[in-house]
Amino acid sequence: MRATTIHGTRDIRVEEVPDPTLRRPTDAIVKITAGCVCGSDLWPYRGENPIREGATIGHECIGVVEEVGAEVRDVRVGDFVVVPFCHCDNTCAHCRNGAQSVCSNLGFTLSGQAEYARVTQADGTLVTTGGVPDDDLVPSLLALSDVMPTGWHAAVSAGVKEGDTVVVVGDGAVGLCGVLAASVLGAERIVALSRHEPRQAVARAFGATHVIAARGEAAVAEVRELTDGVGVDATLECVGTDEAMTTAIAVTRPGGGVGFVGAPHGVELSARSLFDKNVGVRGGMAPVRRYLPELLPMVLDRRIDPGRVFDLTLPLEQSPEGYRAMDERRAIKVLLQP
Amino acid sequence: MRATTIHGTRDIRVEEVPDPTLRRPTDAIVKITAGCVCGSDLWPYRGENPIREGATIGHECIGVVEEVGAEVRDVRVGDFVVVPFCHCDNTCAHCRNGAQSVCSNLGFTLSGQAEYARVTQADGTLVTTGGVPDDDLVPSLLALSDVMPTGWHAAVSAGVKEGDTVVVVGDGAVGLCGVLAASVLGAERIVALSRHEPRQAVARAFGATHVIAARGEAAVAEVRELTDGVGVDATLECVGTDEAMTTAIAVTRPGGGVGFVGAPHGVELSARSLFDKNVGVRGGMAPVRRYLPELLPMVLDRRIDPGRVFDLTLPLEQSPEGYRAMDERRAIKVLLQP
Repeated sequence: MRATTIHGTRDIRVEEVPDPTLRRPTDAIVKITAGCVCGSDLWPYRGENPIREGATIGHECIGVVEEVGAEVRDVRVGDFVVVPFCHCDNTCAHCRNGAQSVCSNLGFTLSGQAEYARVTQADGTLVTTGGVPDDDLVPSLLALSDVMPTGWHAAVSAGVKEGDTVVVVGDGAVGLCGVLAASVLGAERIVALSRHEPRQAVARAFGATHVIAARGEAAVAEVRELTDGVGVDATLECVGTDEAMTTAIAVTRPGGGVGFVGAPHGVELSARSLFDKNVGVRGGMAPVRRYLPELLPMVLDRRIDPGRVFDLTLPLEQSPEGYRAMDERRAIKVLLQP
Repeated sequence: MRATTIHGTRDIRVEEVPDPTLRRPTDAIVKITAGCVCGSDLWPYRGENPIREGATIGHECIGVVEEVGAEVRDVRVGDFVVVPFCHCDNTCAHCRNGAQSVCSNLGFTLSGQAEYARVTQADGTLVTTGGVPDDDLVPSLLALSDVMPTGWHAAVSAGVKEGDTVVVVGDGAVGLCGVLAASVLGAERIVALSRHEPRQAVARAFGATHVIAARGEAAVAEVRELTDGVGVDATLECVGTDEAMTTAIAVTRPGGGVGFVGAPHGVELSARSLFDKNVGVRGGMAPVRRYLPELLPMVLDRRIDPGRVFDLTLPLEQSPEGYRAMDERRAIKVLLQP
């Protein structure tokens, strides 16, 4: 099959690789109709995460079930499915506790920017859309494989509730979906930190009531002013850097919560700084499967349109350009069509 | 008045010092009927926190209102009151958000092991018991000034709910009150980490269903076994050291919560370790005033008896012996009678 592969820093190619095959009776193979590039793909692209040369890359996709293993019961060949980037059996103790991203049988999509992907624990992982979706729904359904549930997880982890004032740190696709999540969860004021006009526009479309272009201490000062010095009830940290986390804790009011979903790169938290403000911190990889029963109907009923984060669509063969566009922040998020 | 003072490492004295006086119209003076020694008093006692030589010490007490400032409206001379160790106006934005320990007008009891104490923001801070309490209620009412609300805050911050399995790290008076709090909040299994028999006995009386005498990795292994490798829903960290926090995070199941109330001494949290398990961390100084409307009736109705943590009662003049007994772990918590 044709697949996007990574060979080194800023060296992305589209090549012929072997088709994925069923390895376990609980696997399925999905023929991908749409995949995309994730902000987290930029870490290895920029040489900040180790890679295996020539490995396929990409973990977000939707498509049609092509083949299922002997023990797959609920998912059938021909089903149109959302593929959560983290695969889970949805039956183990962790899954029953709502921590599907720490499933005892955790797996990942490894060739989401390609023609086919293997999905482990197919019955637990895959969620059918009930038929081939209308074309206009494709981006939003694709967003359900990672970026929207991740923004949602940030909001849930931060404890966003009706009437809250919320800050979202990070104007990548996850942060923007965090704005949307906070809005759906009833936040009254949503402050997006963003200095990029196209992202500000999406943030406002998703429900941001305020946009602050400043960063770091200047951003903290603006939020303080906006909240009469109190700080906000809940903050979504959607970057994963030390500066972003420091900002997130600083803008949160005493007793408030920070939800963090950006994979932390060298972030240390001082227990004392949390203690002094009684600020809670919670986050991690999103348990995508947990949220889909709630999010999928919202997309199918066109109540939310997280697919707006895709502002560039390319044929799979142009994956390298997709990476470049995101790396250079020319695109928020790139959809790839096999 | 007679008051306990600190002069250096392990140098506690009882001396004559000036009576506290009203400084602001919102102050009150309380004549102390019972005070006590807190585990946190042992930090300066052991030379691990800086001190001002000759300063009064002690922040937990109950007593009778002796004098009130001109602006005090709700509290009257002669009222028997519980004195939260952290004083608050109970009207500012932080207090209204339930973060009374970060009140904009925060104050502290500074002479709780003495004959009198000044209480700032008297109307916001003090809670009357409705008459002079029966003698047998004195220890439990005294426990409401800090130790019980602090254990309660650990349980609330950890997110303890009906049916949960809970671990309590720390068998000091706060940890034991944490056991009691978890029990009241409906936890089904409560595991106390304790190697001291008298403390184990109190833990069991407060609702612990399991006691583990091991520490560190051995304790983690025992909790894992007890929970079929899953970990517990909520953990109360009631010590404040790095080892205790590491243990707390390690025994918590993916998606669970850690509530921490021991003042952290040099504790750093790796955001990555929280991220990988999706474990939430929340804690800080307890907003005592917030919890008293809930806890005071439980004490007055004899539904809870947190006063059981006091296993040694001494006259105020013997404060130094009280500190020694707690330092050497001969006593769990010492009640002082002026």
